[in-house]
Amino acid sequence: MNNYGESNGDSNVHEKQVEGHDHCENGDGSDNRVILGIDGGTTSTVCVCIPLFSSLKSLPIPPPILGRAVSGCSNHNSVGETAARDTLEEVMAEALSKSGSDWSAVHAVCLGVSGVNHPTDQERILNWLREIFPSHVKLYVQNDAVAALASGTMGKLHGCVLIAGTGCISYGFAEDGREARASGAGPVLGDWGSGYGIAAKALTAVIRAHDGRGPQTMLTNKILTALGLSSPDELIGWTYADPSWARIAALVPEVVSCAEACDQVATKILVDAVQDLALSVKAVVQRLHLCGEDGNGSFPVVMVGGVLEANRTWDIGKEVIKCIQEQFPGAHPIRPQVEPAVGAALLAWNFLMTESTENSHS
Amino acid sequence: MNNYGESNGDSNVHEKQVEGHDHCENGDGSDNRVILGIDGGTTSTVCVCIPLFSSLKSLPIPPPILGRAVSGCSNHNSVGETAARDTLEEVMAEALSKSGSDWSAVHAVCLGVSGVNHPTDQERILNWLREIFPSHVKLYVQNDAVAALASGTMGKLHGCVLIAGTGCISYGFAEDGREARASGAGPVLGDWGSGYGIAAKALTAVIRAHDGRGPQTMLTNKILTALGLSSPDELIGWTYADPSWARIAALVPEVVSCAEACDQVATKILVDAVQDLALSVKAVVQRLHLCGEDGNGSFPVVMVGGVLEANRTWDIGKEVIKCIQEQFPGAHPIRPQVEPAVGAALLAWNFLMTESTENSHS
Repeated sequence: MNNYGESNGDSNVHEKQVEGHDHCENGDGSDNRVILGIDGGTTSTVCVCIPLFSSLKSLPIPPPILGRAVSGCSNHNSVGETAARDTLEEVMAEALSKSGSDWSAVHAVCLGVSGVNHPTDQERILNWLREIFPSHVKLYVQNDAVAALASGTMGKLHGCVLIAGTGCISYGFAEDGREARASGAGPVLGDWGSGYGIAAKALTAVIRAHDGRGPQTMLTNKILTALGLSSPDELIGWTYADPSWARIAALVPEVVSCAEACDQVATKILVDAVQDLALSVKAVVQRLHLCGEDGNGSFPVVMVGGVLEANRTWDIGKEVIKCIQEQFPGAHPIRPQVEPAVGAALLAWNFLMTESTENSHS
Repeated sequence: MNNYGESNGDSNVHEKQVEGHDHCENGDGSDNRVILGIDGGTTSTVCVCIPLFSSLKSLPIPPPILGRAVSGCSNHNSVGETAARDTLEEVMAEALSKSGSDWSAVHAVCLGVSGVNHPTDQERILNWLREIFPSHVKLYVQNDAVAALASGTMGKLHGCVLIAGTGCISYGFAEDGREARASGAGPVLGDWGSGYGIAAKALTAVIRAHDGRGPQTMLTNKILTALGLSSPDELIGWTYADPSWARIAALVPEVVSCAEACDQVATKILVDAVQDLALSVKAVVQRLHLCGEDGNGSFPVVMVGGVLEANRTWDIGKEVIKCIQEQFPGAHPIRPQVEPAVGAALLAWNFLMTESTENSHS
């Protein structure tokens, strides 16, 4: 479990960590201690390593990245517990190594990971981290949406984030700490605004046009060409051959192209996706009263993920914001300038500062 | 491949078959030769063994079943090629053994199996059977819907079958042999009238009610109770834990119960499913002109599968027929009196008779 293939196989990580606890402060307010921020998604996992900056009141924005590593899926729902845990260990080890640092320097870890839907998920993943790190290391496990929110608000948990990549989720925090989410339940449970949802609807439209249940659509040629298939019949085998959601979600640009060429079927799919995504945000805003008593209060909506950032003529992200602002004019869109893994690191730093302030007052 | 664990491990099946080719005719027009009819579905595979009745002009209806065996899934899309092939071999061996017969007595095999969506699928499965049986054995591979149609028409390929169990498909034949299908593309490709589709929509409705995107519904309590869960959040982990479609489709009775209690969300899900299923049949009827030139011609609609046969107050099958008959008054519903595996056997017998008539005319 604690063997990272670095020094000797049976090294005791706890002892190593305690030895490494002897820090020397640098001139810039940092010491050799670091924070790991991790964004664990269904498609990939990113880990960044930043300095602790324990003597600063606020972090430099953006914070300096000492090391960054990328690995595969760490959603335990998708790949199973062992694979998810191995991915996390690997990506942390690589980020530390690239930082010229090691496990003993880690002071806090914040993991934003998809598949955290219930306190028991959080507990289970905390236990994985607890087996890796000694007890003085602060560990925080959040849904990946929380890290994405923090990437737009520079670590402050306020407002709502909307992620629409392969999957989709909307997650928000009120100033008083109350939180709420909508969507993010996976393809079986109807995340129709996600990249997977959009592409699955497009594939369905091709099948329906082919078997006489639906109107003809440009999507047929566009998608068959993209996949190198010659007939819609072959789509059935294609979807069964590999059930990975990302592979299906990768067809979103074809749908956008058809909508840009005014194909009605493709346009309806995107308009429905916009409604679905906006509805997810509105549900969170309403439950948390983010818009204030009069409904016009300002709040950030952090927009993350390939579906929202496509920067195409038919701009899904822009349409979603327009739809949210019709109901909540104070919704203030933010496109994060740092990646979610950095958001996770900022979050860890903010948690640490809050705890140290609370401790100094107690 | 040809080792059935019966006599010696290295017996040559081809030789066995040739020896067994020496038949003695019985008084009732049968000899010891048999036909195997197989219904290979996503949930289970059934094989029946019937006598060949080579000297009869028509089969006794229902035909006598010499042996019947049941095994698991044989859809190669779902379980992979090796598992599907093994399941088929096992179920045939068991049906033969229960019939007091053996491989050498087999004269024809008709396999109706889900996952046959393209001529290459048919070819691949024929090759599996070809490795088991010597060349004089007649082999027929069809989509499982074709066997289901034959189970309602006593082996005649005319009309349309609608299957709605875990999955759904509509499949038809015109008198001139033209065929057409609609749906049957699997959950990713939008088979919303299937048991899986109905239940997935119900689960989605529970999530939407919970996160504020949709109206409250009785489905929440009904489904959580059925699954022994305490919160809708837990549904996410539940769906991920086992992606089997049958496990999700098993929730259909809960949806029907809620619709019977006038829950609007559940009712809408069933009404939409009815429209979807009827649309599948209508698409096939239209493409094959089963309704004749004036649109009023009579044709059979064979209704198969748990979703259509539930026999509840809210009767999905009855509503589907009503919806089809609004457009095609000549649609004549048939609830098969024999199972699809028997339909496959009847189909093999009809194919054999047609071929022998053609041969005698050539």
